[in-house]
Parts: sequence; C-alpha cells; structure tokens
Amino acid sequence: MTAIPLQSSPALSQAHDGHAANLQRVHALTRAQLAEVETQLLHLPDLQPEALREAVIHIVAAGGKRLRPAITVLVAGLFNRAEDRRVIDLASAVEMLHTATLVHDDLIDGSLMRRGAQTLNAVWTPAATVLTGDYLFAYAANLAARTHNTRVMSIFADTLGVIVAGELQQQFTDFALRPTREDYYRRIYSKTASMFVLATTACGVLCEADEAQLEALRAYGRDLGLAFQIMDDVLDFIGDVREVGKPVGSDLRRGLITLPVICYIETHGKDGLECALQGRCTAETYEAIIARIRHSDAISQAIEEARQLGQRARTALAHFPPSPYREALADLVSYTLARTH
Amino acid sequence: MTAIPLQSSPALSQAHDGHAANLQRVHALTRAQLAEVETQLLHLPDLQPEALREAVIHIVAAGGKRLRPAITVLVAGLFNRAEDRRVIDLASAVEMLHTATLVHDDLIDGSLMRRGAQTLNAVWTPAATVLTGDYLFAYAANLAARTHNTRVMSIFADTLGVIVAGELQQQFTDFALRPTREDYYRRIYSKTASMFVLATTACGVLCEADEAQLEALRAYGRDLGLAFQIMDDVLDFIGDVREVGKPVGSDLRRGLITLPVICYIETHGKDGLECALQGRCTAETYEAIIARIRHSDAISQAIEEARQLGQRARTALAHFPPSPYREALADLVSYTLARTH
Repeated sequence: MTAIPLQSSPALSQAHDGHAANLQRVHALTRAQLAEVETQLLHLPDLQPEALREAVIHIVAAGGKRLRPAITVLVAGLFNRAEDRRVIDLASAVEMLHTATLVHDDLIDGSLMRRGAQTLNAVWTPAATVLTGDYLFAYAANLAARTHNTRVMSIFADTLGVIVAGELQQQFTDFALRPTREDYYRRIYSKTASMFVLATTACGVLCEADEAQLEALRAYGRDLGLAFQIMDDVLDFIGDVREVGKPVGSDLRRGLITLPVICYIETHGKDGLECALQGRCTAETYEAIIARIRHSDAISQAIEEARQLGQRARTALAHFPPSPYREALADLVSYTLARTH
Repeated sequence: MTAIPLQSSPALSQAHDGHAANLQRVHALTRAQLAEVETQLLHLPDLQPEALREAVIHIVAAGGKRLRPAITVLVAGLFNRAEDRRVIDLASAVEMLHTATLVHDDLIDGSLMRRGAQTLNAVWTPAATVLTGDYLFAYAANLAARTHNTRVMSIFADTLGVIVAGELQQQFTDFALRPTREDYYRRIYSKTASMFVLATTACGVLCEADEAQLEALRAYGRDLGLAFQIMDDVLDFIGDVREVGKPVGSDLRRGLITLPVICYIETHGKDGLECALQGRCTAETYEAIIARIRHSDAISQAIEEARQLGQRARTALAHFPPSPYREALADLVSYTLARTH
C-alpha cells in the first residue's frame, strides 16, 4: 500500500472559507483551563500496573487538540462562567469519555495505530483493553459527578448510550444500506457530533442557560460535530499520510463508506466500486478506486457539505451577544473546515 | 471433564448456621418493587438489532435472584422509604451495573456459559459483546441519574472504578501472589462486595442516613458481599453441577485461586498443587487436585470464614431499630451461608 502524500489540495484550500483558520483566540481564552483539564486527565487514580498506567497516560497525553474541552470552556465563557471549577470538571469528563470510546473503538476495529502511535490493543491483551476502556468510563463518570448537577449526569449517560447504540447499529447494518446519506449522517451524529453536543449542552445546563439558548448550543454542537467528521472523512482521502497518521483511503479499505464515496456514487454511479461497497477488493483495486475518488469532484462536494454545516453552526452562535468567546467558537468552525490533519 | 455431583454436603449443611435460610420475608417485602425493577431492566431503549436485543433481554432476564436490588429495597425499608420511586431507579441501576460487568467479564474470561445459558461472546462477536457491555453501562448510569442525587452518582462511578481497577490488577498479578489471603480478599472485595456496598450505601445516601448509619450499611454490604463470594467459591468445589451450572472446580481449572485452595495450602502445603498454582495442569491432575480439596477440611474452614463474616454483617444491622426490613436483611445473611447454588 503506497500512500500518495498530497502536499497542497486545491479542494482543501477552498475550505478556508474566507476565515482565518487559526486557534490563537481559542488558545488565549482556554489555555489556563485546559492546563487544569490536562492535570485531571493524567491523574488516573488507582490504575495499575505501572506499565499499563504509562501506556494509558501516553494515550491520554497524545489526545490531540482538546477540541471538546475547549468548546466546553468557551461555551462557559458565553455565560461569564469560564472560571467556574465545575466547568473544568465537565470539560475533563467530556474528554475522558471521548478517550474511553476511542480505546474500545480501536479494539473493535482491530486498529493497531492511532495518531501515529500504537493502540492499547496492539501492545496489551484484549482483556486489558476492554478493562482499560471501562476504567476510563468510570473515571469520566467520576469527573462528571463532580459537577454536582444531575441533569448534566443524565446528558452524560444519554450521550454514552447514543454513541454505543450507534456503534452497535453500525456493526449490524447491511452492507447494502451503508452507502446511504441517512446511514452516514446517523452514524457520524452518534459517533462524533453527539460528543460535541454533550460538550455544549451539558455546559449550558451547568451555566443555567434557558431552553432557547440550549437549543442554539445543541445546534452549534451538532453542526460543528458533523462538519468535523465530514472533514475527517475527506482528509482520509486527501490528507498527507505523515500528518493524518494512517494510509490514504484507510476507511474504505476497512469497509467504512463515508461521504466522499457517497458523493462519488451520486455523480458517477457504483460501477467498479462493487467490491469496495462489500469491503472485499484486492489491494490494487482499492488503490485504483481511492485514487479515482480522491481526484474526483466528490471531494469538493463533501467539503461543500461540511461548509454549509459550518455556516449553520455559525448562525446558531448569533443567539448569543458578541464576545471574544463567541468569536472563538466561530474560529473553531473555520479551523474545522480548514484543517489538514 | 467429569463433574461429580454432590447431592448433600455435610460441610455445606453446617452453613445453615442455625437460621432458617428462606427468603419468604425478603420476597414479601420486595416483590412489588422488584417487579418494577424487572420492567426497567428489560426496557433497554434503542438497543438494536432485534436479535441482539433478544439475546440481551435473555441475559438480563436470566439474572438470578436479584439479590442486589432486593438489598437496596430492604435498606430503604429501614428508613421507611421502600415505596420511594427513586429507590426503584437505584435498585435497577445497581442490577444493571452488575449485569454490564458480567458481560465484559465473560468476554475477558472467554466464558461460553453463565447460569447454564450461552454467554453473549459465545454467540456474538467480541465487538458486539464489548459494545453491549458499554450499552449496559450507559443504561445503568442513566438509571442512576434518575435518582437526582449527585452523591449517589459519585458512589456509583467510584464503584465501577473499584471493580474495574480490581479486575485490571487481577489480570496482571503474578501467579506467585495469587494464593495469598490478601490478594484473595482484595479481589473479592472489588469484584463482588463493592457492588453490595453500592447497593446499601447509595440507598443510605438517598434515604438521608447519617454517617454512623452509612458506616453500618457499608459494613453490612461489605461483609455480606465477602461471605457471598466465599460461598460462591466454595460451591465451585462442592456444588451440584446441575445447580451451579458449571463443572466442579472450574475456577481452579482457569487459574483462579480461591479461599478453599488457600485454606488447603495453609494446612497441607503446596505439594502436588504446583501446576494448578501456575494454571497449567493436565486434565487428570486437575481432577485429582480438585477431588483432594473438595474432600478436605479446607471446605469447612472456608465456610467458617464466611460464617464469621456473616455474623459481622448481622452485628452491623444492630445499628438499626428492629423491623421486618432489618429481619429480612438478616435473612439474606442466613440465605447466603446456606445456599447450594
């Protein structure tokens, strides 16, 4: 499998969408809180043995850009509550829940690498991986309980339910149904957007948002989350392997039908893609199909869909008065649409 | 592997301990609430596909005697709160958490049978089993959140943490340390007694027990739970295979060192047991070792240890005024010590 690095994609640069895609404002407004989140995430009480603890700390520390806890902190800022201790606890709980689901996902998918590093199940036993994921769920629940807010706890439990029910459904969805938009959007809502909705709405509840504000936070979280996952799926086709950390087209190779494939089929039909839709091509055929999709208009169509969702997310922010926090939440939309890894 | 059914064990009948070991009073005081618990347990919102849902309903329905939720209801009765809706929610949450841990346990142990029925992992994929366990965790958290009590939620999260950390530790404990009492008691506390402590103390919190009462509830739950697990481990050696639902000595065969083995070694030494302590005997040697332990004084020694713990659990109940609920909680101790499956 030769991955073709694509240094500069014209399609992707469209995604800059006229907005400066930097996170300077986000960093400035969340730095102090995210440092505290980081401390809590790495605390991992009573996790033994030491070698497993180190492996889990490595996974947690490699956890990327802390987008979800940053969203929680910024939402709190909309309500002048960014300094609230319980916001740190909630932000930590959200990120810990996210990490726990990744640990079980990697086991379920048999993934050996994530973000360029070995997964737990690549190094440890399946038993240790199941239990480590459970441990992280328990710790996430413990962090969420520190908010002392029962509605937050309910949203938290319900979100885990949505994520897991979605994954179960995906496990048993007929191959024939997978290349539908309905299946795709349902799946990426439960897999990704639901956690963004948790990050926004649970914080809204904590900050005593009214129902109209909660609805705006839900819309922002959902649309940003959907756009985020679409861009992830686009990057799986066009990203630089050194940045994305996995071979180009890895989703399709493991039978996962994403929006670029669906857009491609809508315009060009299924001809020649049959084996990929069944998850059973030869390596050469996968290469050819992936190259065809990545150089087609399906990529820019998928990006346009993400862009429209991003625009809806920005519109939802109009429910809140102007503030640096609101601007930073808008920056996250631009960043999501412009990211290259 | 031929399991030798043992219809009547003299050691086990000692365990009757002079008390009538029937659950009539427990049933009378908890029947209405446990019917509601059962309805909640079988509700399983959004679990798909239908065949998996049916399999999970089968597992939940086959969940035995509902000892843990019965304890919760009886504890509520000590505070005249047995009719409280939130007690039903808590009792359901406790049993659902118990069921979730069993699903992951069976996957981790590779168990194909539980309570005489096939486990999920025997019939479904490991992926479906991991996700189903996660789904049940989420549902348990959802049920716990319905108590609208943040301290209950904390105890709940902490209990899951204790259970999982204990299982992780067990996965990585050196074989050399496993035949120690310290390792054994730590393991059965986290595996079993912690859930009994959850059933008693979370209910105490819900019923606004004072700290001395909570301490008594904790002691009752812990000592009953430890006694319960010891009797389970004794029954693994001496129980009727048709009642216990697994071959005699199954724990030892899979490398699990329990109290009867520890008692045997204390009196008779390790000679001849080396391969069992390493988890690597031939089938014939396992048969011989299990027969030797099951006909030794180690069985009655282990039962005596359970009996003393049961006595301590009864003593803890003295912190509460006499009532049918208190008597029923004492009945559970007698039942635990006298059970044959």
